Amino acid sequence: MAFRFEVLQKDTSSRARLGRIETNHGSFLTPAFLPVGTQGTIKSLTPEEVVEIRVEAIVGNTYHLYLRPGHETIGKLGGLHTFIHWKNPILTDSGGYQIFSLGALRRISEEGVAFQSHLDGSLHFLTPEKVMEIQRILGSDIAMVLDECIPYPSPYEYAKASNRLTTRWAKRCLQVRQENDPALFAIVQGGVYKDLREESAQRLVEINFQGYAIGGLSVGEPKSLMGEVLNWTIPFLPESAPHYLMGVGTPEDIVNAVVLGIDLFDCVLPTRNARNGTLFTPSGKMSIKQAQYAEDRRPIDETCGCYTCRHYSRAYLRHLYLANEILSSRLNTIHNLYYYIGLMNKIKEAIREGRLLEIYKKQQLKGLETE
Amino acid sequence: MAFRFEVLQKDTSSRARLGRIETNHGSFLTPAFLPVGTQGTIKSLTPEEVVEIRVEAIVGNTYHLYLRPGHETIGKLGGLHTFIHWKNPILTDSGGYQIFSLGALRRISEEGVAFQSHLDGSLHFLTPEKVMEIQRILGSDIAMVLDECIPYPSPYEYAKASNRLTTRWAKRCLQVRQENDPALFAIVQGGVYKDLREESAQRLVEINFQGYAIGGLSVGEPKSLMGEVLNWTIPFLPESAPHYLMGVGTPEDIVNAVVLGIDLFDCVLPTRNARNGTLFTPSGKMSIKQAQYAEDRRPIDETCGCYTCRHYSRAYLRHLYLANEILSSRLNTIHNLYYYIGLMNKIKEAIREGRLLEIYKKQQLKGLETE
Repeated sequence: MAFRFEVLQKDTSSRARLGRIETNHGSFLTPAFLPVGTQGTIKSLTPEEVVEIRVEAIVGNTYHLYLRPGHETIGKLGGLHTFIHWKNPILTDSGGYQIFSLGALRRISEEGVAFQSHLDGSLHFLTPEKVMEIQRILGSDIAMVLDECIPYPSPYEYAKASNRLTTRWAKRCLQVRQENDPALFAIVQGGVYKDLREESAQRLVEINFQGYAIGGLSVGEPKSLMGEVLNWTIPFLPESAPHYLMGVGTPEDIVNAVVLGIDLFDCVLPTRNARNGTLFTPSGKMSIKQAQYAEDRRPIDETCGCYTCRHYSRAYLRHLYLANEILSSRLNTIHNLYYYIGLMNKIKEAIREGRLLEIYKKQQLKGLETE
Repeated sequence: MAFRFEVLQKDTSSRARLGRIETNHGSFLTPAFLPVGTQGTIKSLTPEEVVEIRVEAIVGNTYHLYLRPGHETIGKLGGLHTFIHWKNPILTDSGGYQIFSLGALRRISEEGVAFQSHLDGSLHFLTPEKVMEIQRILGSDIAMVLDECIPYPSPYEYAKASNRLTTRWAKRCLQVRQENDPALFAIVQGGVYKDLREESAQRLVEINFQGYAIGGLSVGEPKSLMGEVLNWTIPFLPESAPHYLMGVGTPEDIVNAVVLGIDLFDCVLPTRNARNGTLFTPSGKMSIKQAQYAEDRRPIDETCGCYTCRHYSRAYLRHLYLANEILSSRLNTIHNLYYYIGLMNKIKEAIREGRLLEIYKKQQLKGLETE
């Protein structure tokens, strides 16, 4: 598969960069936020709506799609893009994060990981080679290696052993990579231990992948550690490859991480929050169910250009939420994703114009206010 | 409010007619099917999608909107059209049907009906005058009188007394009607008793309304009785007013009722069935969850032009349904409503071309097959 990453411009006062990723399904600029289409749909939206929100690439979940409807089925139906009616790039995770979230339901060995389906308790065994096959059959544009995502906190010795296993697995993934396979990204692990993060990054870079993700963050560690881990890790990653921070995060997290050199993000936060009635605005989060909005004819955010803000009042959105209407999830999701993509667009513009640190300082202040 | 009904063409071999209803929010052709926007939304769809499906008018539920968010709130926010972002005609029911469905939670008197909210148990009292006020404040285009919808079966004496009460209530509604109020339709009741249906129709017509609904059907009576009740009632209704069959029904019911002289329909069937994974097609109903569709790359209906059939396979729709995804309800609702509106358009065309009885016979045959 065609895959190319190009750094278009470097920020003068931070490690931030403006870049472009090219795939067989089109290109997109970075830093980019990829919404999560867990089960073959960005929850509640059609692909046309996702495009209208200005999303350029999405994430699919190998674990979920493997279990249901099954990658073989999706393959027979023409691959994931055709199956879900999405023409633009898709990054698939390896399922590592989901499998390790299963806790007691999984057992790890050198060969791979055995687990029970959260759906029906059926037994499965995934290896590095198998997750490559699954992502190949899905027709992903960017595949992730199988990794072990360790919990926070993890003892040093466990983190070290796990880290080395993750590196061996990454190598096995690359070894079975075929000519037309998706681009392959490795995942740096190592918990919150500086030397393990460095070792992980160095060894993976020696093997040589098309991109590098930083995993194992946003798993319950204190906020302050995220920046530290990024600071330890990113200097060891090649500048010529994209840096992907998995499963992160809040608008503040994203701005911070861009400053430290991250190019790609994915997170369920904007979509999940939307379904719970929590909306992002430039002045902080808003809980639409609050009584103060009962007769409020203003949109969520008067400065927002999304479909929801152009046509609906807070009062109506509150009503839909309280009445448990499907349209509530839709309209809230449209707004939150539009907010996130708008943030990414502001970040890109700021890098272009050398003003990123302004946004960074503003977000830092707001982070302090709202936390 | 402006309201006008015009019969454009009469069918030569049945009581069917092609007509046009004009309101302050635009006009639409009849026979028409109005989807139900119970709580201020056609469940799962945006107004733009409803228009794209070629829906021209919708129903709002006075009972639900009165309880939540409250008609006063909707009034303050500019009326129902503005609140829900719908520019075309809205017909509001009076709440009679919902209140009488509450069973033990309501108590009826000459003055009106006392009931407990299904939401929070709070006590309410609605009178004919009050439901007029509510519908006025909602800014409905077509309002319904308060009626008692009796269950099937009901004893003759009860049906008779109830019927007369419904007539007195209808008169009270008309007496408080103001200059700019919505058009007002009366509701013929009378259970499955021929003389009561005739009496109800005659007395309401004497009072003189802008339209006449037939209520109390589709409440559990045998299918065959619906045609009988329509045959007893419609000849007593003025040809110059629209005839509205409330809460009906299946595609077969609709074709049958058009032949007997009905102009307007509303029903939750296409939207509710959609959310339950039951889809309408020219060859009958389809349950999308069936295993036979697991790898079926065909659309629901290869002859259908709806958004869902243009872009998605049965396999994907089955996956979304089994995965309990919101998009499942959306795509299924789009298809089912498109099917219903398509049926109404075929009916109108057939009346225009004098071919309605062909459709009638085809539907009758299919009704026999699928029942």
